[in-house]
Amino acid sequence: MRTLEWDFGSNCLRLIDQRRLPAELCFVTCDRADHVAAAIRDMVVRGAPAIGVTAAFGLALAALHSPAQDLNGLKNDIQKAARVLRASRPTAVNLTWALDRVLGVVAPFWGSPADLRSLVLAEAQVMADEDVAINQRMARHGVELIDDGDLIIHHCNTGALAAVDWGTALGVIRMAHILGKHIHVLVDETRPRLQGARLTAWELEQYGIPYDIISDNAAGFFLHSGQVKKVFVGADRVAANGDVVNKVGTYMLALAAHDNGVPFYSVFPTSTIDLSLPAGENIPIEERETGEVLNLEINGVSVFPSAAKARNPAFDLTPQRLITALVTENGILYPPFTEKLAEVVSRPVS
Amino acid sequence: MRTLEWDFGSNCLRLIDQRRLPAELCFVTCDRADHVAAAIRDMVVRGAPAIGVTAAFGLALAALHSPAQDLNGLKNDIQKAARVLRASRPTAVNLTWALDRVLGVVAPFWGSPADLRSLVLAEAQVMADEDVAINQRMARHGVELIDDGDLIIHHCNTGALAAVDWGTALGVIRMAHILGKHIHVLVDETRPRLQGARLTAWELEQYGIPYDIISDNAAGFFLHSGQVKKVFVGADRVAANGDVVNKVGTYMLALAAHDNGVPFYSVFPTSTIDLSLPAGENIPIEERETGEVLNLEINGVSVFPSAAKARNPAFDLTPQRLITALVTENGILYPPFTEKLAEVVSRPVS
Repeated sequence: MRTLEWDFGSNCLRLIDQRRLPAELCFVTCDRADHVAAAIRDMVVRGAPAIGVTAAFGLALAALHSPAQDLNGLKNDIQKAARVLRASRPTAVNLTWALDRVLGVVAPFWGSPADLRSLVLAEAQVMADEDVAINQRMARHGVELIDDGDLIIHHCNTGALAAVDWGTALGVIRMAHILGKHIHVLVDETRPRLQGARLTAWELEQYGIPYDIISDNAAGFFLHSGQVKKVFVGADRVAANGDVVNKVGTYMLALAAHDNGVPFYSVFPTSTIDLSLPAGENIPIEERETGEVLNLEINGVSVFPSAAKARNPAFDLTPQRLITALVTENGILYPPFTEKLAEVVSRPVS
Repeated sequence: MRTLEWDFGSNCLRLIDQRRLPAELCFVTCDRADHVAAAIRDMVVRGAPAIGVTAAFGLALAALHSPAQDLNGLKNDIQKAARVLRASRPTAVNLTWALDRVLGVVAPFWGSPADLRSLVLAEAQVMADEDVAINQRMARHGVELIDDGDLIIHHCNTGALAAVDWGTALGVIRMAHILGKHIHVLVDETRPRLQGARLTAWELEQYGIPYDIISDNAAGFFLHSGQVKKVFVGADRVAANGDVVNKVGTYMLALAAHDNGVPFYSVFPTSTIDLSLPAGENIPIEERETGEVLNLEINGVSVFPSAAKARNPAFDLTPQRLITALVTENGILYPPFTEKLAEVVSRPVS
């Protein structure tokens, strides 16, 4: 089962509703591009690779449902849908990358509208399949970094649910388990949306990988204890110099790893690299609605004062100086990163 | 209203039940020393200064309710209660400090059992009153560190609820507000027990100090943004070299402050200093039951997989190299700390 899947019977996009896990596994079906944009915004689907491919299918829906009879009208409707999808989340660059890739197929096309509709859907489907292949390639590279017996800290969710299937950082961990390495994962719960506690813990149970959930605050204690051997995270956008923007909390986790000499790895497909930005400082950081912070209950009682206010940045910037290596489908990169990042973006998947 | 108060009518100790705030303000009444130990263990009352004085009143209850007719029997019963109370929480040294102070009065006493009973209660009462005076003195020293317009990050709860009244780090912030400095507080929610979201936010509302709650993960984002001017935390035990053991998450917060050149202050009474430990590495870190991590619900639904396991260290160690200054009732100490800490412990309150 994939996180997102095209239903060829009903010509709809089917998404696992990640807001409902782990309590129940259920699905959201999108039959229009603006439904897809809402699903990305509301985090029915999340994770940089997953939202990229989801947006590509959003363009396929826009093409299929466009009433346009002529090619230019159809192209305009696809462009319009791309603008709506592009605005759904600002930080992960995979969204922009995926939309641009589909638009790059649309723009030079001069056949029939029906053929363009088929072509857009076919391109989205190729991107979905490629995503799985790329993630598995990343995992085969990254697994070299994991030793038998490692205790690993992992932040947010970067597993199958963060991609079409398989995942990035958690995909590396899963590969290590499959290859028979005995590992144990400390799962950062990842406030405010608790992707670690909800999604990563759920995935690790499916895979049979032993884990403990920790509050994000506890990572420093365990890193200082000497027990933790590696830290693995994903990425939402990587600048040309190797600065990584990722789920909020990654920066403090990287500081604690660095302060204790524990290797810190960020795993992502080359579609996450944004060579247009020399460094991470200018990557836009989404600030989400404060209900995501103020929504906790214990025994049915809200834990916050009723008038409480909050701030809710969803990402932060981890400077490249704190990162031991970057793992992509084209190999593991060690510092200095700038030339190597430029090179892996242009290199065909090997 | 004090966090803990002796009821002279019923000869009981009355505690604000901090587990129920902010939903409701209610009280727990202890009439035996082992009730007091349970209240400390279950965190009805928490905060290093508060649990010290609470334990002293626990000895008063042991003395009052001891059936012993002779002085030695009474002293034995008090000693026995001290052992139970001492074991209730391992990390904060104020507990040991307070018990040793009362036992230091008990040991040389050679009058009547009735007089010893009165003496123990009187000593606990003096300690409660001194705690308030000491905290206000800390606040008058520390307030110099806060400028008009400061945005301040605060971790855990260090306010009136963490002491008999007034508090340590939050007492400094409160003093700045009273003196007319315009400040805004970013309140770390402080997982797992959410003392920031529950208790500090509640206190700040009582005082009329503007604040926003943030997930602990977001502190790094705000520190890097350049908006935050100071970080204030308390302490549960301070080693002879200035290493601070405090609520879990303090260490990563200090790393992020240090990495961005933001001053990091720890505020505590001299009773929190443990000169017997040259550095913080040997301070015992309490690991509490994992239900504290796995207890969250959103809209009445548990956020964790049903079989989830967890780890739950309650404190961590912030090395002195990350600390800008220590604030005590005997003044502000800048690095190097060792000689100055030894000096403020022995100096009478000035």
